[in-house]
Amino acid sequence: MSATRLFVEADLSAGSEAALGEAQAHYLRHVMRREDGAELLLFNGRDGEWRARLSLRGKKAAVAEVGERRREQAAEPDLWLCFAPVKRARIDYIAEKATELGVAVLQPVITRHTNVERVNVERLRANAVEAAEQTERLSVPEVREPIDLGRLLAAWPAGRRLLMCDETGGGPPIGEALAALDEAARAAPWAIVIGPEGGFAETELSGLRRMKDVMAVGLGPRILRADTAALAALACWQAMVGDWRQPTPRLQSDYRTSRGTVPL
Amino acid sequence: MSATRLFVEADLSAGSEAALGEAQAHYLRHVMRREDGAELLLFNGRDGEWRARLSLRGKKAAVAEVGERRREQAAEPDLWLCFAPVKRARIDYIAEKATELGVAVLQPVITRHTNVERVNVERLRANAVEAAEQTERLSVPEVREPIDLGRLLAAWPAGRRLLMCDETGGGPPIGEALAALDEAARAAPWAIVIGPEGGFAETELSGLRRMKDVMAVGLGPRILRADTAALAALACWQAMVGDWRQPTPRLQSDYRTSRGTVPL
Repeated sequence: MSATRLFVEADLSAGSEAALGEAQAHYLRHVMRREDGAELLLFNGRDGEWRARLSLRGKKAAVAEVGERRREQAAEPDLWLCFAPVKRARIDYIAEKATELGVAVLQPVITRHTNVERVNVERLRANAVEAAEQTERLSVPEVREPIDLGRLLAAWPAGRRLLMCDETGGGPPIGEALAALDEAARAAPWAIVIGPEGGFAETELSGLRRMKDVMAVGLGPRILRADTAALAALACWQAMVGDWRQPTPRLQSDYRTSRGTVPL
Repeated sequence: MSATRLFVEADLSAGSEAALGEAQAHYLRHVMRREDGAELLLFNGRDGEWRARLSLRGKKAAVAEVGERRREQAAEPDLWLCFAPVKRARIDYIAEKATELGVAVLQPVITRHTNVERVNVERLRANAVEAAEQTERLSVPEVREPIDLGRLLAAWPAGRRLLMCDETGGGPPIGEALAALDEAARAAPWAIVIGPEGGFAETELSGLRRMKDVMAVGLGPRILRADTAALAALACWQAMVGDWRQPTPRLQSDYRTSRGTVPL
């Protein structure tokens, strides 16, 4: 039986005991029907990945007895995804896929044509945690509170490059633009910026194009939905700039252990 | 008010009348509340894209009076997506996103570890049609009946290259592999092959690796769900091999007209 992989807040070290949340305990007991001593894999975004054993406590609670470290902590690429909120199913999809594709920060951005009022940050975070647990990630992306595009750009960190997906066309193709980057650009922190369904307003486009380190690119002849554009740009960036450039030997068994899941 | 973009089976030519399906008529009348003479954009995968006007007939029916051609027919890249069926929501996403990303053929493939029995091909087609209508595509991808992997490979067309996403690792990074292709390889027909959640069986892996024109590639250090791997590979292929390599000037107004949708 494969180990269930869980994100925990607790510090992890050999011989320590990691508290499991109520939802995690319920899931392990009643959904996965795991028994005392069941194998777990734990990560907290700081201490790497650890083997652990389930220890049931009383009728409801459970803790994890931490064994040896399985993998050292490794950082994700310093990549932000700045995206205009879209409807519920699609924003969940963005959080899940962006996590699988290795973003460090999810930043909802309110634009002129954004027609979604409320963003449920806790829900996005739950999607990110579940995706991280299932994709061998050693961290969960930081999900930030929504911010107005103007304020985001006004406080933009010096040196962080913007890859702007420009649905109005005119930008060079994304493959050509990323292939032309020098090593300094590849080593820099990045952000991918995706507009809302209605597109950026003219003033927003000119504001973005005035940014020092912005690169506006095209994503081909078809119109992409905002969530598709985000996922496509992330995949291209990882393949040509990010950590997909390193070969990644992996055991089939590791693939199998990655199927465990926790409820939202 | 933006034009609603619809896929129709009918031939399209100036002055002709194109029949609209019952679902399309209902949608235009009662969901979009379009009136007689409302602007439409029609495409059928053969004759390009045409401006048309809605003409309501009786209580339920509707036809489109075809005006002038807006765009010439253009072919999508000759790219197949061969994917093992996954659960309902995720297979819908694969059909939708693969259409937006410009595949010509969607080929469900049954593998040893495929744990989905029935594939609703009609439902996949409906997803593909809706996505094509919304993404300026001039065609709808062909959705084929599911086929066993062994039979698919036994009848594999000579010269069609396979880009195999190999979750067991060991393959070169996808970006490196695609960048190294010569012009002959770029001009060839292609297929992207994605395994099921449980991965390919050993015999399937060796069968795939024995194919003449196969290229096994890695998609980075994280485990990707099958649907994520499919879309990531498609985006990388389009950016580095496919039609995303051409610059694509586009008017914002075109972007706006692409928001219409039809019910599934």
